[in-house]
Amino acid sequence: MRALVIDRSVPVGLRIGEVAEPEPAPHQALIRVTATSLNHGEIQFARAEAPQGSVLGWDAAGIVERAAADGSGPPAGTPVVTLGWDGAWAEYRAVDTDLIGTAPRDTDPADLSTLPVAATTALRALHRLGPILGRRILVTGATGGTGRFAVQLARLGGAHVIAATGDPATHTGALRELGAAEVVTGADALDAPVDGAIDLIGGSHLVAAYQRLAEGGTVVAVGHSAGTDETFPFGAFFGDQGRHDRSVTSFFLLGCRDLGPDLSWLAQQVAIGNLRTSIAWQGDWTRVGEAAEALLSRRLHGKAVLELG
Amino acid sequence: MRALVIDRSVPVGLRIGEVAEPEPAPHQALIRVTATSLNHGEIQFARAEAPQGSVLGWDAAGIVERAAADGSGPPAGTPVVTLGWDGAWAEYRAVDTDLIGTAPRDTDPADLSTLPVAATTALRALHRLGPILGRRILVTGATGGTGRFAVQLARLGGAHVIAATGDPATHTGALRELGAAEVVTGADALDAPVDGAIDLIGGSHLVAAYQRLAEGGTVVAVGHSAGTDETFPFGAFFGDQGRHDRSVTSFFLLGCRDLGPDLSWLAQQVAIGNLRTSIAWQGDWTRVGEAAEALLSRRLHGKAVLELG
Amino acid sequence: MRALVIDRSVPVGLRIGEVAEPEPAPHQALIRVTATSLNHGEIQFARAEAPQGSVLGWDAAGIVERAAADGSGPPAGTPVVTLGWDGAWAEYRAVDTDLIGTAPRDTDPADLSTLPVAATTALRALHRLGPILGRRILVTGATGGTGRFAVQLARLGGAHVIAATGDPATHTGALRELGAAEVVTGADALDAPVDGAIDLIGGSHLVAAYQRLAEGGTVVAVGHSAGTDETFPFGAFFGDQGRHDRSVTSFFLLGCRDLGPDLSWLAQQVAIGNLRTSIAWQGDWTRVGEAAEALLSRRLHGKAVLELG
Amino acid sequence: MRALVIDRSVPVGLRIGEVAEPEPAPHQALIRVTATSLNHGEIQFARAEAPQGSVLGWDAAGIVERAAADGSGPPAGTPVVTLGWDGAWAEYRAVDTDLIGTAPRDTDPADLSTLPVAATTALRALHRLGPILGRRILVTGATGGTGRFAVQLARLGGAHVIAATGDPATHTGALRELGAAEVVTGADALDAPVDGAIDLIGGSHLVAAYQRLAEGGTVVAVGHSAGTDETFPFGAFFGDQGRHDRSVTSFFLLGCRDLGPDLSWLAQQVAIGNLRTSIAWQGDWTRVGEAAEALLSRRLHGKAVLELG
Repeated sequence: MRALVIDRSVPVGLRIGEVAEPEPAPHQALIRVTATSLNHGEIQFARAEAPQGSVLGWDAAGIVERAAADGSGPPAGTPVVTLGWDGAWAEYRAVDTDLIGTAPRDTDPADLSTLPVAATTALRALHRLGPILGRRILVTGATGGTGRFAVQLARLGGAHVIAATGDPATHTGALRELGAAEVVTGADALDAPVDGAIDLIGGSHLVAAYQRLAEGGTVVAVGHSAGTDETFPFGAFFGDQGRHDRSVTSFFLLGCRDLGPDLSWLAQQVAIGNLRTSIAWQGDWTRVGEAAEALLSRRLHGKAVLELG
Repeated sequence: MRALVIDRSVPVGLRIGEVAEPEPAPHQALIRVTATSLNHGEIQFARAEAPQGSVLGWDAAGIVERAAADGSGPPAGTPVVTLGWDGAWAEYRAVDTDLIGTAPRDTDPADLSTLPVAATTALRALHRLGPILGRRILVTGATGGTGRFAVQLARLGGAHVIAATGDPATHTGALRELGAAEVVTGADALDAPVDGAIDLIGGSHLVAAYQRLAEGGTVVAVGHSAGTDETFPFGAFFGDQGRHDRSVTSFFLLGCRDLGPDLSWLAQQVAIGNLRTSIAWQGDWTRVGEAAEALLSRRLHGKAVLELG
Repeated sequence: MRALVIDRSVPVGLRIGEVAEPEPAPHQALIRVTATSLNHGEIQFARAEAPQGSVLGWDAAGIVERAAADGSGPPAGTPVVTLGWDGAWAEYRAVDTDLIGTAPRDTDPADLSTLPVAATTALRALHRLGPILGRRILVTGATGGTGRFAVQLARLGGAHVIAATGDPATHTGALRELGAAEVVTGADALDAPVDGAIDLIGGSHLVAAYQRLAEGGTVVAVGHSAGTDETFPFGAFFGDQGRHDRSVTSFFLLGCRDLGPDLSWLAQQVAIGNLRTSIAWQGDWTRVGEAAEALLSRRLHGKAVLELG
Repeated sequence: MRALVIDRSVPVGLRIGEVAEPEPAPHQALIRVTATSLNHGEIQFARAEAPQGSVLGWDAAGIVERAAADGSGPPAGTPVVTLGWDGAWAEYRAVDTDLIGTAPRDTDPADLSTLPVAATTALRALHRLGPILGRRILVTGATGGTGRFAVQLARLGGAHVIAATGDPATHTGALRELGAAEVVTGADALDAPVDGAIDLIGGSHLVAAYQRLAEGGTVVAVGHSAGTDETFPFGAFFGDQGRHDRSVTSFFLLGCRDLGPDLSWLAQQVAIGNLRTSIAWQGDWTRVGEAAEALLSRRLHGKAVLELG
């Protein structure tokens, strides 16, 4: 089969080459991939560290080619959305059936391919906050791929959503359309404490979010694009005066269990129009170099999707 | 009645004066105070901010002089250990009955007076960690008043206790006697991750403790004596590679509910010899100036107790 | 002032009489009541047990007549929705400020008066389930006062809501309008497990709901109108085969903290049309006998509201 | 190799026969088994349902014969204690490395073999109760294999342990030696509520334990030997009057994660004398028939251990 193979002799470090088809373990289905979306982490870090000749890729939409031998997961022919550690950038991938969601027929594979890492991360990070119905929830880095899902999902979850973006002049309209009740430049600008926060930037944004938490609130530290230290000023961790039991916690999607049903639910929300994907770049997988460059330039407010075949 | 009254015209800012006896609300008992212990926060901060003529004091042991009008709490004549926002440094204090623990007869009031803030804080901060039986628990600032209780209580709770102190040469023996399985200079010196930590210092100690947490672990930020920023280096909040769901959380004792039964249990543990108090200074309440000075100098590895008449 | 006074010499056990105006404690505001809604528990149980001459009533909407002396809570003139143990069935009530929500001006007091016990119970019982966004949630007794709020709030919280009613032929349309994705006769009729349930009936409904829980799921036992034992067949509490960590838990609204902000949020949802109240009977408070009778007959699918002139 | 093979043509349904050595998956180590302990569930249910010729067995102590191919788990030659779905009743078993605990050298394999299901269940069921230090914890069925571990572990965890047994006259002394502060005939006999309970019997014992829970308390339904319905009388699930947030929850050991470190910790506690095993029957594995009969007769207050080789 063909795949995007790591090749450091070519400029982008990736070329379409011929590799062996993966052999699924008994608890894995074989998926024919139709679209894959790129994530910062893959392009920025994984690409540099992966062995020459390997096949990367976390997110893939496709069709079940061969069901899992152990009987788990969907049957052949089912449209699916899949998550894994690698192997998504190929015509076929083998995936653990508990990392497969089923999709309604006729859902656009490009849309589906944006869900696995970005939307499932947004959903599970929100779940980590506990009940959010009727609560004030802050999302920093709200215009990125994960951020747009977090804003929409927090809104679907009945929260009062406050979206933070460095450029409210440009993005306020779009963020309000996604469900933000307020758009601010950062947690410093809040006029009242929040019950929880999804931080997609890190650095001073994480610290500011923590300092605006109400008693019992949590910041989930999901994204780290700031690339800087987090310095909490003396007193930030005091608990008196309504500041008891405020937490900041780390997050890793593959540290969560039972993601399959969530992938199915997210696919369904896309199909019925409850959840909008944000594809900022879309093209044939032969144009991976362009896509990677756009992603790294941080020009993209949304996801980059490669289509196969 | 007599009380230690805030008076900024005298050197220590406190003098014994005559004030009106407190009038208990219906849900408060009137306590005749026999001993009170001093806490850093009271001496260092509260003393400076309190109005002239007011009566401070969180911790008091004594005898119920008059039971609460609403029928709650122990009857007159009961030996008790009490916690409150103020009023402990007086011959009589009015206390909410849900902040009163009963004590076995013949328990030394000086010992009891050390429990309210320090031991209850240690107990509730440990509870905030979730189950600790069979888990590795770090206590930083282990030689202070709260630290000694935290080490002992974590040991009573079946944890593998690692006590951190800046001066292991001096304190290792004593900390091992209190139940520490290991004594280290700080979290940096740990040879394996911990499942939870009680941080009594803050600053770099808090950061180091966080960085040694196992997945799912928590640092409770209880003490802040370092008086400095907390700077987490880039990457500290990453969740991959076994670092998912690691939290740091703020703590405030009076943000907790139902402290009365805990005070009773702690008093009982002292009475039966399961829990050792650490009185580093003890004297008549007329010597409050000496006690305050000793406390502020940080020479004390334990509590300072004032005895009343 | 006038109030509905317990008087067992009259048929309904309640008459409008003259009583002393309540004297608010420092942390209480005095409220001029404009509407009150009746709850089953008040009419069925509390009425029988209350002392002759006392004033009952949990739910009241009104206007702040005099703000709390301690400075907490809203200022005089604010439209409010209030919750308390008693005193709502009177021209004036004294209420703890942490049990007061503020309401947008021009919100109908009759609507607001239906919120305190019923909607806040629904909200907090849902919160007890943890994250519900994208989860399958069952509501039994869905057509009652609390049930209708539970269905709507679960929907606002992004759940897939399954409403159970004994008479789907009559109620399916209305329940779907409130947000139910499915309407069933009971948990036995479910085609897949649920992640959580709000049980408003008890007895066999509670047991059936428990037996349809997915691993990690919870049934909150809120209502007990069945008036019968709960018999779990042998094996119901087994944990193997995907049945690990399924819980049933008891619930009591006044066991929850910080209800004030929830009351404000609920009032706002009513004002903006996100939450529909269900007033099945409405009339002047002089007609309390009629209202009580309607409520006890279980003819009402919604709340009974008394208006004060 | 030799194994205890299911053979329904012989009286006890088990005979020593020759079978193929298991082939470990990459994440499995091959263990040479030296001792295995029997559990009720294996003898009573699994034996009846297993295919002819299969090899059962959950608990085994032994020595690593061949380390896992993926590099996880202990090296060859390490004494270990292992847990699995089957295969323990054989000279060699293949075990997932995350279900292997390491044991100190010179620990008796018979003792170790009693830990996997019984002690790990007791530990994890206690963990499900949250913090237990200073809390009142009830253990029903305290004299059985799991019960004796639960009593000891709750005591190691700093709880006030109340052990329930149908025959206190016989067992009070032994249970107190294991750490019970009180021995009762059942939850009905308690003089105060408990904060949590481990129920190892089910039926009316489970119900009685639930009814004695304090607010916020949990009963973990671990054992089901009563074999009867659980009937909760009307009102048992009420939440008022201090009965808010009381839960009963199901439990399944293999629904828990990360059991390996717990197995190691338990083995260490046995080695240092903190945890006593209770071997009520011990003999060569050729005498499996005797052991099974003793177990089923419920004459055993402790575990039955088969020794190999």
